[in-house]
Amino acid sequence: MSVRGENMERTNVIIGQSGGPTAAINATLSGVIRGALNIGAKKIYGMINGIEGVLNGNIKDLTGLCTEENLKLLENTPAAALGSCRLKLPDITDEGTYKKIFAVFKEKNIKSVFYIGGNDSMDSVKKLSAYAAAIGSGIKIIGVPKTIDNDLSGTDHSPGYGSAAKYIAATMQEICHDNSIYNIKSIVITEIMGRDAGWLTAAASLPRQIGGKSPDLVYLPEIVFSDEKFLADIESVLEERKNIVAAVSEGVKYAGGRYVCDFDDRETDVFGHMNLSGTANRLKNLAKERFGCKVRAIELNTPQRCASHIASLRDLKESVKIGREAVFAAAEGKTGVMMTFIRKKLQPYKIKIGCENINNITNTIKTVPPQFINKARNGVTDECLMYILPLISGEPKLTYKNGIPKFFEII
Amino acid sequence: MSVRGENMERTNVIIGQSGGPTAAINATLSGVIRGALNIGAKKIYGMINGIEGVLNGNIKDLTGLCTEENLKLLENTPAAALGSCRLKLPDITDEGTYKKIFAVFKEKNIKSVFYIGGNDSMDSVKKLSAYAAAIGSGIKIIGVPKTIDNDLSGTDHSPGYGSAAKYIAATMQEICHDNSIYNIKSIVITEIMGRDAGWLTAAASLPRQIGGKSPDLVYLPEIVFSDEKFLADIESVLEERKNIVAAVSEGVKYAGGRYVCDFDDRETDVFGHMNLSGTANRLKNLAKERFGCKVRAIELNTPQRCASHIASLRDLKESVKIGREAVFAAAEGKTGVMMTFIRKKLQPYKIKIGCENINNITNTIKTVPPQFINKARNGVTDECLMYILPLISGEPKLTYKNGIPKFFEII
Repeated sequence: MSVRGENMERTNVIIGQSGGPTAAINATLSGVIRGALNIGAKKIYGMINGIEGVLNGNIKDLTGLCTEENLKLLENTPAAALGSCRLKLPDITDEGTYKKIFAVFKEKNIKSVFYIGGNDSMDSVKKLSAYAAAIGSGIKIIGVPKTIDNDLSGTDHSPGYGSAAKYIAATMQEICHDNSIYNIKSIVITEIMGRDAGWLTAAASLPRQIGGKSPDLVYLPEIVFSDEKFLADIESVLEERKNIVAAVSEGVKYAGGRYVCDFDDRETDVFGHMNLSGTANRLKNLAKERFGCKVRAIELNTPQRCASHIASLRDLKESVKIGREAVFAAAEGKTGVMMTFIRKKLQPYKIKIGCENINNITNTIKTVPPQFINKARNGVTDECLMYILPLISGEPKLTYKNGIPKFFEII
Repeated sequence: MSVRGENMERTNVIIGQSGGPTAAINATLSGVIRGALNIGAKKIYGMINGIEGVLNGNIKDLTGLCTEENLKLLENTPAAALGSCRLKLPDITDEGTYKKIFAVFKEKNIKSVFYIGGNDSMDSVKKLSAYAAAIGSGIKIIGVPKTIDNDLSGTDHSPGYGSAAKYIAATMQEICHDNSIYNIKSIVITEIMGRDAGWLTAAASLPRQIGGKSPDLVYLPEIVFSDEKFLADIESVLEERKNIVAAVSEGVKYAGGRYVCDFDDRETDVFGHMNLSGTANRLKNLAKERFGCKVRAIELNTPQRCASHIASLRDLKESVKIGREAVFAAAEGKTGVMMTFIRKKLQPYKIKIGCENINNITNTIKTVPPQFINKARNGVTDECLMYILPLISGEPKLTYKNGIPKFFEII
């Protein structure tokens, strides 16, 4: 274990979790806690419901909870143990909000702030860093990436993605078996998360790499969707076999930009993102009308982001590691950065952890590149799967009690 | 390992799988194969797509495949490795069909027939047995139970249920964590399989037994559903907390017998069973209208019956065992029976395997008894959970390759 920074002065740190849940965000929380213990932090605080907790005075002293047993359970617990938020911080010219936040930091004698989240949360890191710089505060602000979508730029991949990809790969293989048993025509259309990037949907094809069953057709949001091409693709596969499975990203759009699922009033969240569920159901109706056979729509839904029982061991280990390294980075004086993974080697897989100026990160979406998508634009290449495969490697040993995984709760 | 019947004459056996897939039906197939090897069967045949395969001459000689390595993989493979069917056999007065079936048995020198399935498949066992008796055939016909629904009568529980229940318990706990992270009102409504019996939906509450998070409200098909009571229940929970999870059986019905999901044209299968998906979505719309907050519908869908990656070790072991015992029963001269589990003791859990006249089994649904349902009729009792808990015990050690479970394919 690295002991960099262990001679730093004893300071207090605060950690927040923000944005959507993942199976690995608590592993990163544990990593930050482990790092803070390594550098001899005096107090370790948790923001309850992210930056909202700082604004509401809802902060919890975690120092007493940080036993090895609790941290191990925490690393296998899904969702955000500190609670999360989707609060969009105002522009830093809105001084009231930031004065309040930094007053809390001062009151608690906090020297380093760690914020674990995705694109929207990195926007908060950017603003907090900018405000700290503007007022000449020495408080270090570090973003630690987390997103099942894997769409954060500046990093080879994001903690949380590997576990979601592993859940999707395993579940899709099972669904393909499930759909193969009857000697009748049947089509299953699965809907996979990923608003703007097809990384999760691509993971549906992973079983192919071990000679297992995987979807016949895969549609990423990077490719313009066409109902007619979709139906023609199915027709073509039906010539070869009776049982078809298609994997479709929730974010597929028609030429012109309309979402496939956008057929009635759709809700949007505070960041203006549309609730995209319903894509598979819509395509099910189309396929049913055209082929007249059994068609089933399956939304993989929230288990994609919280199925800790089949998390990727490598993802969890890397999530702990990047959290710990974030603390060392702060201890070494870094601020206004997001921690990143840099892939040093594809085979055998090797990464190192770096950090990147937060201003280079936010609001750019890392999509699946063209060479990862097949020529027929209805599947992914082996090159794509070779990129993903190492990220789903290994199975964590969960603590089971009476056949049910035991989790750790903070709030 | 039992060696009963090992001195029986060397005969040929045939095995079929029928009805919906489960995570354990292949473990039972493996058990029958192991039993057949134990009694020294000469040839082990598999019906491809159940009794349909016998009628179409689609039969596979499995004898060469039965290595220990293959059987172990098979025991962890979801769905039906031999393929399945939903063929309803005609009345035995329709001699043509039965003459064809028994001619195949004679041609292949088959002395024992094992049919693994649920209620509808036991109907086939009943008819085949009745025909065998009517023509004075000595061929033994044995049903081996399988259903995730656990609604087969005459047996304490059915192979396949424990694994489905474990998947539901683990997934519901994860969904409850996922839904607990924001400091805003949010309702999740999960839809769980089980057309006529609430055994699967009841399993959603299992995490409660280990102090984990589980749904606030649980609605079984045994209880008449009322929209107003459902909304009043939610309102009452909302007084205590902001984040609510409800588990609802796909088979809930209003007074008068109309399914909650029966709001547009619904399909029915060859047995006249209605396709019931859509219940959660319907209730989501109701709750959204009443409470105006974030409401999400989650259909647990087919992973409930094929999630081998979180099967119950006890379920798989019992499934192998009941398959093997079926062969011994046939070797001892039994026919026209379904194999059963008899629970000898609740704590510590102890079962024995028996068999029951097939005429006492078919077409009676074993529902969740009144003492297993709480007084408010929106949850289950501890007594109910104590019945289910031993069935989800233990985690199988799957063979993973590059992070993905490896399965065994026959067809």
